[in-house]
Amino acid sequence: MKLSNRIYDMPFSGTRKLTPYIEKAKEKGKKIIELYVGQPDIKTPEGFFDAIKNFKPEVLAYGANNGNPKLRKVISKYYKEKGIDFDWDEILITIGGSEALLFSLISICDPGDKVLAVEPLYTDYNTIAKELNIDIKAITTSPENGYHLPDREAIEALIDKDTKGILMNHPNNPTGTVYTDEEVNMISDIVLENDLFLISDEVYREFVYEGLEYTSFAQIEKIKDHVIIVDSISKRYSACGARIGNIASKNKDFINNVVKLCQSRICPPTLDQEGAIELYKTPKEYLKEVNNEYRKRRDLVYGLLSKMEGIVCQKPEGAFYICAKLPVDNAEKFLIWMLENFEDNGEVVMLSPIEGFYASEGLGTKEVRIAYVLEEDKLKRAMEILEKALVSYPNRTNY
Amino acid sequence: MKLSNRIYDMPFSGTRKLTPYIEKAKEKGKKIIELYVGQPDIKTPEGFFDAIKNFKPEVLAYGANNGNPKLRKVISKYYKEKGIDFDWDEILITIGGSEALLFSLISICDPGDKVLAVEPLYTDYNTIAKELNIDIKAITTSPENGYHLPDREAIEALIDKDTKGILMNHPNNPTGTVYTDEEVNMISDIVLENDLFLISDEVYREFVYEGLEYTSFAQIEKIKDHVIIVDSISKRYSACGARIGNIASKNKDFINNVVKLCQSRICPPTLDQEGAIELYKTPKEYLKEVNNEYRKRRDLVYGLLSKMEGIVCQKPEGAFYICAKLPVDNAEKFLIWMLENFEDNGEVVMLSPIEGFYASEGLGTKEVRIAYVLEEDKLKRAMEILEKALVSYPNRTNY
Repeated sequence: MKLSNRIYDMPFSGTRKLTPYIEKAKEKGKKIIELYVGQPDIKTPEGFFDAIKNFKPEVLAYGANNGNPKLRKVISKYYKEKGIDFDWDEILITIGGSEALLFSLISICDPGDKVLAVEPLYTDYNTIAKELNIDIKAITTSPENGYHLPDREAIEALIDKDTKGILMNHPNNPTGTVYTDEEVNMISDIVLENDLFLISDEVYREFVYEGLEYTSFAQIEKIKDHVIIVDSISKRYSACGARIGNIASKNKDFINNVVKLCQSRICPPTLDQEGAIELYKTPKEYLKEVNNEYRKRRDLVYGLLSKMEGIVCQKPEGAFYICAKLPVDNAEKFLIWMLENFEDNGEVVMLSPIEGFYASEGLGTKEVRIAYVLEEDKLKRAMEILEKALVSYPNRTNY
Repeated sequence: MKLSNRIYDMPFSGTRKLTPYIEKAKEKGKKIIELYVGQPDIKTPEGFFDAIKNFKPEVLAYGANNGNPKLRKVISKYYKEKGIDFDWDEILITIGGSEALLFSLISICDPGDKVLAVEPLYTDYNTIAKELNIDIKAITTSPENGYHLPDREAIEALIDKDTKGILMNHPNNPTGTVYTDEEVNMISDIVLENDLFLISDEVYREFVYEGLEYTSFAQIEKIKDHVIIVDSISKRYSACGARIGNIASKNKDFINNVVKLCQSRICPPTLDQEGAIELYKTPKEYLKEVNNEYRKRRDLVYGLLSKMEGIVCQKPEGAFYICAKLPVDNAEKFLIWMLENFEDNGEVVMLSPIEGFYASEGLGTKEVRIAYVLEEDKLKRAMEILEKALVSYPNRTNY
C-alpha cells in the first residue's frame, strides 16, 4: 500500500536533518546555545495560570465551535485599541495560528490553485500548502536588501488565472522584515486590481522596533473585504503551548463558510481559551517591556554580526529573528561541521539553515536564521562562538 | 471574489437548522431536555485538574510535534492492557479525534480518491472528506437490522481503483452498533484482499455493553500493517474540551510521514496533555462504573422506545446513542413542530435528525439519534414527552 502523493510530497521540518547531530553533540557533553527555534524565554503572564486554576467545571465540556465569545470579545477590543476594526463576530478562535492558516487556505483555494508568498517564508506555509494541493508561487527576496519586496511588475508577473490570493507574513518570520507603508500599499493595489484574497499572518505584530509605523493590512480600507488576518497568542504573550490563535475578516462570505471548518473539529481547547482571555487583559506595559527587551537583543546580535567579516545582513525591523548570509560553502554543512568538529570551551551555537524556508529550490543555501530568544549574555557568547567557528571552518568562502 | 468550491461544498452541522428554533423556544420559556449533543454529563476525573494545577512552568512552551512522550507511553500501556499491541512510538498525539481523522485521510488519499464508510456516519466524516476533496462511498445500513453491515458482495461492489481505504466507526456514532467478530473479520478480509487501509475510529471503545466481546481492528493480526486507529480521551474520560486524541498504527511508512502533519501544526496543547496523562492513570473502576451507568441508561431508553407504537429500533450494543425511525413524515419537521407547537407541562425534548449523518441523499429522513447522556430520571421524562408529542403530531404516519 502506498500513501497519498500529497503526504509524500510534504517536506519534513528544516531542523530534522540536524536533530541527530545535535543529539550526538549533547551526548558527547557539548553545550549547545540554541538559537534555532522560535521559542521565547519570556515568562508567560501569571494571569494565564490563575485563570485556569480558577476555572474548574465538573465536566470539561466542548466549547463553542467558533470559540469562546468572551475571548472573541477581548480580541476585538485588542484590535480596536490598535486601530484595527474587527467586531467580535468577525473573529473566530482557532487552534493556534497554524489552524488559522490551514482554514484560510482551504477556504480560498481548491486543489491546483495558487497563492503568492514572500520567500524566504515560514516553513509551515510550504507544508500546509502541499497538504492541501495548493501551489505557492514565490516572491523571492534576498539578504542584500533586507529581504524587502521586489517591484510591482515582478510580483504581478507571478499572477495567473489560478492565483487566488497573496499570503503575507508581516513582520516576517524568518527574516524579521516589516513591510513599509509603500510596500503595504503596493500589495494592496495588486490585491484589489487582480481581485485576490490577502491572507496576512500578523502574529509578530507586537514585535516591531524603534517606533516604526506599523500598518496592518486590516487597516487598508479599500481592501477590507479581501483581507483575512491570521493571528495567535503564542509569541505575543509567550504562550506557545496553549495553541490559541484566531482568524479575523470583514468578508462575511468567508466568515460564514469557515464556520464549517470550525464545526469539523468541534472546538479549540476549553481551558486554554480561559487562560487566553486573561492574557488579553494583561497590562499594556507587559507588551512594551517585551518589545524593549527584544529590541535590545536585536541591536546586540545585529551589531556583533555586522562586524563579522564576510557576513551579509541588514538590520531587521521586527519579529525576533535575523537572517544572514554566511561566508561558507553551505550553511547546513557548516552547522553540522560545528556540531561534529568544533567547540569553544565545550560550547557550540545552533542556528537554522534557511534553505527550507525558500519555496524555490537551490536558494538560501548559505543563509541562516538566528532566533534571538535568549538573554543578552547568552547571545553575546553565541555570537563569539559563531565568529570563531566561521574562522575555523575549512570550507569558508569569500562569497 | 469567490471562495473555494471545497468550502462551499462542505455541509453545515446537522443541528444548525434547528438552532434558531431551539433559541426561540427557550425565549418563550420552554424547558428543553437536550439529547441532541454527544456531551456526556459524567464528571471529568479530578486527576486532570490536579495535574494542570501542579504543572506551572515559567514559560508555557511548545511541546514535541508528536506529542508528550509520557502521554504516548501511558496510552501504549492502556492499549496493551486491552490486548492491543502498540508501542509508544507507534502512537502520535493529535488535537482531538477529529485531527487524528484529518491526518489519516490526508495521508492515504489524494484529491478524487475514495474511502468507504458505513452510513449513517459521524457527520464529521462527511465534512472532513469534502474539505480534503475525498469521496465517501457509503456502505448503507438501516434501522430494521440494527444498522449492521450488508454482505461482503455489496461492500466489494463499492470498491474501484480509486478506493484507498475503509473508514469504520466501531462502536458507531450515531447508531451505537458494535460490529460482531464475523463483521470485523469480513471487513478485514476485504481490506487485505483489496490492499486497502483501514481507518478504525474507536473512540467509543469503552462503551460496549453486556460483556459483549469487543474486537478492535488493531487485534486482527493479518491486517496489522493496514490499520490506523483513531482515538480520543473526550468520551472515555469525559474530557471533550481538552482536545486530546491520538493516532496509532504499526505501519511505519504511515507513522513516519504523518509526522510531517504533526510538524505543520507544531504541537497539541501542552497543559491538556499533562491532564491527559493523569486521566490514563485513573483507576480502572472508573471506566467500569461509567460503562455501567450508560448501560442502565441505554436499557431504560430502549425499553421505553420499543414500547412506543410505530417506532423502528434495535437495541444498540455500544456508544451512548440510539437511533430510531419515527412514525412521522419527516423527523426534522417533527422536531421543529415540537419546538414551535408542543409542550408538556412547559417541557419539550430535543433529538438529532440524522439525515445529515447519511452520505447518500434522501436517506434517514425519518430517523433520529438520541444521545442518552443525562440521568435516568431525565431520560424517563424525555421519553414520556416524545411519546406524547408523537401522538399529537398532525403528520404522524404509519410508516
